[in-house]
Amino acid sequence: MLKLYTAPGTCALATHIALAEAGAPYTVERLDFKNNQQNSPEYLKINPKGRVPRLVTEHGVLTETPAMLAYVAQTYPQAKLAPLDDAFAFARLQSFNSYLCSTVHVCHAHKMRGARWATQESSFADMKSMVPKTMGACFNLIERDMLKGPWVMGEGYTVGDAYLYALTLWLDGDGVMYITDEQGHRVGFIDGKMVNEIPGAMVQLGRSGDLWSDSEPPTIYIPTGIAFTVSLDGTGLSTMSTSSVTMI
Amino acid sequence: MLKLYTAPGTCALATHIALAEAGAPYTVERLDFKNNQQNSPEYLKINPKGRVPRLVTEHGVLTETPAMLAYVAQTYPQAKLAPLDDAFAFARLQSFNSYLCSTVHVCHAHKMRGARWATQESSFADMKSMVPKTMGACFNLIERDMLKGPWVMGEGYTVGDAYLYALTLWLDGDGVMYITDEQGHRVGFIDGKMVNEIPGAMVQLGRSGDLWSDSEPPTIYIPTGIAFTVSLDGTGLSTMSTSSVTMI
Repeated sequence: MLKLYTAPGTCALATHIALAEAGAPYTVERLDFKNNQQNSPEYLKINPKGRVPRLVTEHGVLTETPAMLAYVAQTYPQAKLAPLDDAFAFARLQSFNSYLCSTVHVCHAHKMRGARWATQESSFADMKSMVPKTMGACFNLIERDMLKGPWVMGEGYTVGDAYLYALTLWLDGDGVMYITDEQGHRVGFIDGKMVNEIPGAMVQLGRSGDLWSDSEPPTIYIPTGIAFTVSLDGTGLSTMSTSSVTMI
Repeated sequence: MLKLYTAPGTCALATHIALAEAGAPYTVERLDFKNNQQNSPEYLKINPKGRVPRLVTEHGVLTETPAMLAYVAQTYPQAKLAPLDDAFAFARLQSFNSYLCSTVHVCHAHKMRGARWATQESSFADMKSMVPKTMGACFNLIERDMLKGPWVMGEGYTVGDAYLYALTLWLDGDGVMYITDEQGHRVGFIDGKMVNEIPGAMVQLGRSGDLWSDSEPPTIYIPTGIAFTVSLDGTGLSTMSTSSVTMI
């Protein structure tokens, strides 16, 4: 039985999808990034990198998404998640995954994780302001030069598609959707943080135990009798994005 | 015949070493990074990423070091450059290479390539000042938690050792060695740039066509009859480093 350490909204979703697609037996442990559980002494003891994903196998522990994706594909070959019999095609898939981890993920991380590489608030703001441009450039390059279509590698679905899906969700995150009541109180994701100022309102994040909960948008409950406005702010988006709002 | 596009002082050295260790037939084309040849229209046409390494094979083109290293190991299995028959051991090697490309390389790039992620001079200076700390942390983690010894993966030399060697050279680059004449003119690598202010002095970079020239320190010729001082400045080093100076 494999065990995946993950957290909602992270690249660990890629490995989660790969495990599900492979039909692998696995359990999931979710870390609470909002409370910085990834840097708790308990977690650093088992993963000194302070990151997810972390995959516990019968042979030992793995970190780093591209390594895990190739491992899942090689260990469950019947799922055909990588071109295992063709070294060049496999290398092309690995090149795609490597670009996602070393360039796309890194560009995105400059939005909220500037403290990895700098110390000043002014630097963080500078880095953050450039993210729409760098992420837009990355995805333009992907669309123009990397995707064979209909899937990343052409006719067959691979772990590269799972990885691309996970990171593409971050583009959506660059937009903002929130609800405002008549007093100006707001609830929703604003500037990358969950805000809930409306008395009686509730936010339910993705359902635990459901594969897709790692990326599922939140359900927001507003008390009856309150007039409210739904705002969609796409000024921070790096590329065009489609959002659907379901109101019940 | 394979063809590797490389440039001195870059991570492309890892693939260069792997090709040599594999006994692969290859030729090398060096780009002139000092004149930004990697972003010339001619090169961007063949590699829109504007980077090295780029490897031309009979099947097509590869980019991204971890993908190339695995490809070389798989294509020349007799060289035993990766544990190809053990998916978990192979994943551990890939995890190591992925850490080098997505974390170590990225930390180093904040020293001279801040414009990838920010726009202000103050941000670049802030990023640069943090590099000794981040690179030190990376190499501490590598030494403490990743190296099995005597090689990265234990008893056998792998492509991970070639990659680690290439990036370890950057630690040396964080130190400074230069020669000053009696008038205060200097020659040598200062702040990451080659400076030659001494009249009649000559700097010879690594010999073309020699594998090790990508990392070989420069040879500096000083005219006879000039008194000079050799300075070694290690204040910018992230970890202890050994340099040898040969004077003829």
